[in-house]
Amino acid sequence: MSRARLEAFSDGVIAVAITLLALNLALPGPGHGSLLTQLGDHWPAFVAYLVSFFTIGIIWVNHHERIRNVKVVDRTLLFLNMFLLLWVVAIPFATSTMAEYLTSGGQDAHVSMVIYAVVFQGMGIAFALMFEWTLQEGHSVHPIPADLQRTVRVRSSIGAVVYIAAIPLAFINPLISLAIIGAVAVYYIFEQTPRELRRSHHDVED
Amino acid sequence: MSRARLEAFSDGVIAVAITLLALNLALPGPGHGSLLTQLGDHWPAFVAYLVSFFTIGIIWVNHHERIRNVKVVDRTLLFLNMFLLLWVVAIPFATSTMAEYLTSGGQDAHVSMVIYAVVFQGMGIAFALMFEWTLQEGHSVHPIPADLQRTVRVRSSIGAVVYIAAIPLAFINPLISLAIIGAVAVYYIFEQTPRELRRSHHDVED
Amino acid sequence: MSRARLEAFSDGVIAVAITLLALNLALPGPGHGSLLTQLGDHWPAFVAYLVSFFTIGIIWVNHHERIRNVKVVDRTLLFLNMFLLLWVVAIPFATSTMAEYLTSGGQDAHVSMVIYAVVFQGMGIAFALMFEWTLQEGHSVHPIPADLQRTVRVRSSIGAVVYIAAIPLAFINPLISLAIIGAVAVYYIFEQTPRELRRSHHDVED
Amino acid sequence: MSRARLEAFSDGVIAVAITLLALNLALPGPGHGSLLTQLGDHWPAFVAYLVSFFTIGIIWVNHHERIRNVKVVDRTLLFLNMFLLLWVVAIPFATSTMAEYLTSGGQDAHVSMVIYAVVFQGMGIAFALMFEWTLQEGHSVHPIPADLQRTVRVRSSIGAVVYIAAIPLAFINPLISLAIIGAVAVYYIFEQTPRELRRSHHDVED
Repeated sequence: MSRARLEAFSDGVIAVAITLLALNLALPGPGHGSLLTQLGDHWPAFVAYLVSFFTIGIIWVNHHERIRNVKVVDRTLLFLNMFLLLWVVAIPFATSTMAEYLTSGGQDAHVSMVIYAVVFQGMGIAFALMFEWTLQEGHSVHPIPADLQRTVRVRSSIGAVVYIAAIPLAFINPLISLAIIGAVAVYYIFEQTPRELRRSHHDVED
Repeated sequence: MSRARLEAFSDGVIAVAITLLALNLALPGPGHGSLLTQLGDHWPAFVAYLVSFFTIGIIWVNHHERIRNVKVVDRTLLFLNMFLLLWVVAIPFATSTMAEYLTSGGQDAHVSMVIYAVVFQGMGIAFALMFEWTLQEGHSVHPIPADLQRTVRVRSSIGAVVYIAAIPLAFINPLISLAIIGAVAVYYIFEQTPRELRRSHHDVED
Repeated sequence: MSRARLEAFSDGVIAVAITLLALNLALPGPGHGSLLTQLGDHWPAFVAYLVSFFTIGIIWVNHHERIRNVKVVDRTLLFLNMFLLLWVVAIPFATSTMAEYLTSGGQDAHVSMVIYAVVFQGMGIAFALMFEWTLQEGHSVHPIPADLQRTVRVRSSIGAVVYIAAIPLAFINPLISLAIIGAVAVYYIFEQTPRELRRSHHDVED
Repeated sequence: MSRARLEAFSDGVIAVAITLLALNLALPGPGHGSLLTQLGDHWPAFVAYLVSFFTIGIIWVNHHERIRNVKVVDRTLLFLNMFLLLWVVAIPFATSTMAEYLTSGGQDAHVSMVIYAVVFQGMGIAFALMFEWTLQEGHSVHPIPADLQRTVRVRSSIGAVVYIAAIPLAFINPLISLAIIGAVAVYYIFEQTPRELRRSHHDVED
């Protein structure tokens, strides 16, 4: 299995998943109150779209950063990659369920946010497993230097830690969970890869 | 992040978004009056399909023209690209909402056209930001010569100006807004890149 | 615009369109009679799926055969390609409408088959225009020899001629139209590109 | 037809099909009982998602292993590949029908599982035909050595044999069919390509 085709297939799946997110924006339509009221009532769908869109976008960026440095694609990596995509593909489902129940309110809004956080957590675990695979002897073209591994591991785990915290918080207030999951996306957009690491990667840039 | 993978991912997202547009063509089906009447009543869906299809097509062409000239893909460009795709992915939603309300008529047809114009405007702003990024020192393989930057900027802004104008016009008559948004697409299909610019690009053609 | 990205984008659009065809296979589901009866009543959906699937598949093969021989991608070719994709993307809509009305029967089954044939005809015209563009002086890496152009033109037109014939035939019996449109797909699967032409193309194989 | 574009198109179709699987996870939504009860009642959809997701994933891996070793892409291979994709694209339909009837129970659960097994069987036959094509004289860059062909053929047929067995078993208990179809996926994830074969392939890795 070549690295190029692993990337192409993953890109395809991620691109379809991110585009399907927008299906959930659909409003009830004519005969269900004024359009402005519908837009207002539907706000969880728009916020959920933003959070899920940028989170999937960040997965894509980080996925690429890991894979392009891989020496040989073996069955373990393929399986871990499929495991990651299993969760990515489930994000539109988790997003629409959560947005729907946040709109309708009631006790199940809590449950729907737990589902959302669990899917993100599953994705985070899959990504962490892929990342650990790349750290193993002989798996990377340019291994991450030992003194930087800790920094990169901490950086990678921030999402996972927040997604775990979002699960109990959903029982208190689902909006807090949504806010911190969204904050993770904002963090990863602005966060910089350590300069030393980027330099060590520079010659595998294609 | 390599330029090639940025293009491949963006191509995937744009290809899915343009294909999802056709889901909105679906007619009510058997038991809702004669098929010819349904086709006739459904005309806004067909016109909206044409306008959105060619607009997304033009975004794709212009996206490629900008990206293939980029020297190094940094986090800012990735973020701007995600911001552009956020709006592109929302176009099928805006298209179907607008077509539905244009079909049903009433006051909300105006509001639905505003939503449509706002999404196109968001896309235009995202594209303009990406374009300004490419003009910055050291970002392009073949920088646009200073004497041509004005021409290219004006050319790029035509869409944005029209989409802004389409918002107030939607309150007067939504069909006028749709007509001028469609006219932008026709303009960009027939408009030629300045000859000097194309020549300066020639050696980055791949 | 590079040939490679034109191909990649077109591949993406065609791949999504061919996959969306299957959405139309969905049965009414539990509570609508026995599953075997539903499958039997739904036969037009399965036949329509086969015909549309292989027709789109053939478009993809022929698209590639034309494009890989193109010297320079200009705005005219881009526009013709968008025009082709406009019809390809509409095929799932035409397929589901036709299958639905063939299932429900009545006068509108004729009309729905006309829509189906018109969409295929539109696609055929777009493809013919693209083909004529490639025949023009300086557009192909390996121009088709003058003595073979006639053969290739005739071969290309068979679909277009049949799709035109399918329109009036739909008023007599829509199943005859469907049968001959399906026969076109079978013809192109087994038909061989003239040996001389393939040889002249051989060195642009990538 | 180049090998690269055959792969790119197949990747696109497989990526869309695998992502569409998740559309079937959608729950009835607010007003249909508690969300936890809905999740519980909906378990066949989640199990079916897992089985279909990993099966399509394995098809993709095996597809790549076959195609990258192909010397020349001819019309026969293209047709066999289209035949394979025809079944892959139908998997989301078969999956959602099966999950829906397993949820609602009754006699038609058996029938829906037969449909599911038949689609997987169709896919298996298509893959076996493609595989036999690659074994023919002159079709592969690195032909599989005669002494390994038997091993590889047996390995390839395991899925096909199980899918055939799943058809009669569906009449006894559809869950047994689902379990053994799922077991095939698990088998192929952990099963290793014979070491000798991998070595002989090594120099066509791209």
